Amino acid sequence: MNILDIIEKKKVAKELTSEEINYFIEAYTKNEITDYQAAALIMAICINGMTQDEILALTIAMAKSGDVLDLSDISNHIVDKHSTGGVGDKITLIVMPIIAALGIPVAKMSGRGLGITGGTADKLESIPGYNINISIDEFKQNIKDIGISLISQTLNLAPADKKIYALRDTIACTNSTPLIASSIMSKKIAAGADAIVLDVTCGSGAFMPNKEQAKKLATLMSKIGVWANRKTICVITNMDEPLGFAVGNTLEVAEAVNALKGKMPDDVKEVVVELAAQMMYLSGKYPKIAENRIKVMEVIENGKAFEKFRELVERQGGDVSFIDDPSKFEKAPIITPVIAEEDGVVEKLDAGMVGKAGLGLGMGRQNKDDEIDPRVGMIFNKKIGDDVKKGDILAYVHANTPESANNCVEEIKKAYVIGYRRISKKNIIEII
Amino acid sequence: MNILDIIEKKKVAKELTSEEINYFIEAYTKNEITDYQAAALIMAICINGMTQDEILALTIAMAKSGDVLDLSDISNHIVDKHSTGGVGDKITLIVMPIIAALGIPVAKMSGRGLGITGGTADKLESIPGYNINISIDEFKQNIKDIGISLISQTLNLAPADKKIYALRDTIACTNSTPLIASSIMSKKIAAGADAIVLDVTCGSGAFMPNKEQAKKLATLMSKIGVWANRKTICVITNMDEPLGFAVGNTLEVAEAVNALKGKMPDDVKEVVVELAAQMMYLSGKYPKIAENRIKVMEVIENGKAFEKFRELVERQGGDVSFIDDPSKFEKAPIITPVIAEEDGVVEKLDAGMVGKAGLGLGMGRQNKDDEIDPRVGMIFNKKIGDDVKKGDILAYVHANTPESANNCVEEIKKAYVIGYRRISKKNIIEII
Repeated sequence: MNILDIIEKKKVAKELTSEEINYFIEAYTKNEITDYQAAALIMAICINGMTQDEILALTIAMAKSGDVLDLSDISNHIVDKHSTGGVGDKITLIVMPIIAALGIPVAKMSGRGLGITGGTADKLESIPGYNINISIDEFKQNIKDIGISLISQTLNLAPADKKIYALRDTIACTNSTPLIASSIMSKKIAAGADAIVLDVTCGSGAFMPNKEQAKKLATLMSKIGVWANRKTICVITNMDEPLGFAVGNTLEVAEAVNALKGKMPDDVKEVVVELAAQMMYLSGKYPKIAENRIKVMEVIENGKAFEKFRELVERQGGDVSFIDDPSKFEKAPIITPVIAEEDGVVEKLDAGMVGKAGLGLGMGRQNKDDEIDPRVGMIFNKKIGDDVKKGDILAYVHANTPESANNCVEEIKKAYVIGYRRISKKNIIEII
Repeated sequence: MNILDIIEKKKVAKELTSEEINYFIEAYTKNEITDYQAAALIMAICINGMTQDEILALTIAMAKSGDVLDLSDISNHIVDKHSTGGVGDKITLIVMPIIAALGIPVAKMSGRGLGITGGTADKLESIPGYNINISIDEFKQNIKDIGISLISQTLNLAPADKKIYALRDTIACTNSTPLIASSIMSKKIAAGADAIVLDVTCGSGAFMPNKEQAKKLATLMSKIGVWANRKTICVITNMDEPLGFAVGNTLEVAEAVNALKGKMPDDVKEVVVELAAQMMYLSGKYPKIAENRIKVMEVIENGKAFEKFRELVERQGGDVSFIDDPSKFEKAPIITPVIAEEDGVVEKLDAGMVGKAGLGLGMGRQNKDDEIDPRVGMIFNKKIGDDVKKGDILAYVHANTPESANNCVEEIKKAYVIGYRRISKKNIIEII
């Protein structure tokens, strides 16, 4: 087999065989194919697309390119959850303890944040003492003992996907639906999931800017799930404004803890309840989705979900006093309000602009080796649909320098559109 | 300007501005753009094509990416000649002395052979003593003194083209007409040509496999000539069988010398006369093409063309005794006949297969640093249309080992198709 023949074939929009796709993935992972040859092939795929068979072959080949986690000794019904990323997205921290509290094993590896998108691994690590890098044996033992473990991606999962993902970023090939779908699904399959609930975010703060593209991606990922024999449900959620009130690592952990204690913002609740209900359904233990939604609220109200999260933090070495009292988290040295300059209704709070403003504070990473400051971020008082009077505090910026605080305040002002139309909000857009 | 925006634009088939193309070429030449980014852009160009404005911008940008030879102190009517490559193509060695003998200055830099295509630089270098690497000052002085100089590409001409050409080879993007056309034209413009005659070969031994593709390429190069203000004529020639009887470096030099002395194979003569007549026309000195064809034959018959070649060889340090008596060239140690196994007519003598067989002898280079043996090659006794009887000698293989001789004999046998149809041959297919 020859990479030139494979590139030529895709260049003229012919279908690649699974053998050809396997050859490419294996050889590229072993650096036997150069980055420029891979770049040429990826560009040809971006322009000419892929068939169903090609997408499935690519997904499976990437999933098998590195470690594949076998969780069958724990359960054959491991349900994974993944979000395509958003601003203020602390859903994993809330949903996973709920699921575990309902007796469904939770084995989740999370990524770090990149760009405007936060990462669960960073949020967990902002809890003093919490060890996100435990061994796979400890990971499995924790699940066996307490039904849950949340860690960083310590295994070498889908290294081919990592290489291709990084390459795509440098050659303007990030927005290909087949490549996004196979990238996400390959990681979930390698991580040992038997079933997957995907939170496909859409809007200004998400990778998919509109509903149509989100739906296209969701439909494709659901199909890959069918082809690859992994039950998959996609929940398309709104990411036009940040989720909840808090954006930033410790600020979001605090919001998640308060949510588990029963104080949950409405938009967060809508997403949490739906995702959890779908995960319960996929576990096989809870077949009735309408009932599941009620059960989700029950484990929050009776404290079992919070108790499970506390147990998790304790087991992984975290200081539970921060969970018992999230106000203990160290605050950023500068906390500045963003003041409304006119009366009206919030028509827009652009999540993408908020995410970018957060990057300026040191909340996330422009490049994957950047240091982050877990304390910085924003707390929003006013969100879409809220009435505003001139002089009201729209938000607080938590910053570590006066300069970054001022810049952020200006950017947040621009992210708000105060007008006169009351926009109706809907956080769950569609389930596929 | 940002390479990602440029790649994205071409990915979605939008037209690039000349500023964007200049930026890409300049930055890539300086290694400020990576090979994988260039590969992605080149692939997008291959699939989505280029507009006229883009092709012209690319040609000019590549021409200006390195040294640009200024020959205006010699003439403002420098006519260059270029062949898209073939097997047994010794036309330059014959045409250029003819042109110089007619009082038109000849300033020609030639490349080395790569793949099945021979290179004039290798052929010249096979003449003992001939120096193809003289300085540009000597090059110009020779043209001023004797009206001709043929050298290797010593200048750093169109380095961007060199990089892109090498890259295309590794990413299955060699057969893009806009990229081939701009590559050729950029080198000719950088080499100081005011007008250009292009020999666009087509057939099994050429880059363009059929007439339609050759015509497409020729039309595009003629257009680039118009846009870039360089008078350009393309002569499409047949490369289904090798040109002339000899293939191999010294074997071809000997055939070229004999041609200049008046003993020229018919197919070679057809091409030589047409190319020379067109070059004369473009020089501005000889406006009537029909008359030019007669004048070409005159300078061969009266010995002036041969005398000019002899003068050139002498001036550049070559041993003219080899030109006076080409039988002096050292022979390959093994000369083996290829014997006809049946009666019939030669229907085919596949030039591509002959070229590949020659590579096995050490006649050319698989990779650009390979050593070549100037002595090896083939002499064909029978060409398309010739009658053959069983036992006739079809060709002689000149080899340096018994093994390579035997392999070559077998391959040459396969290159011949002996049948019953008498194919009519035409070497000049079209002039564009």
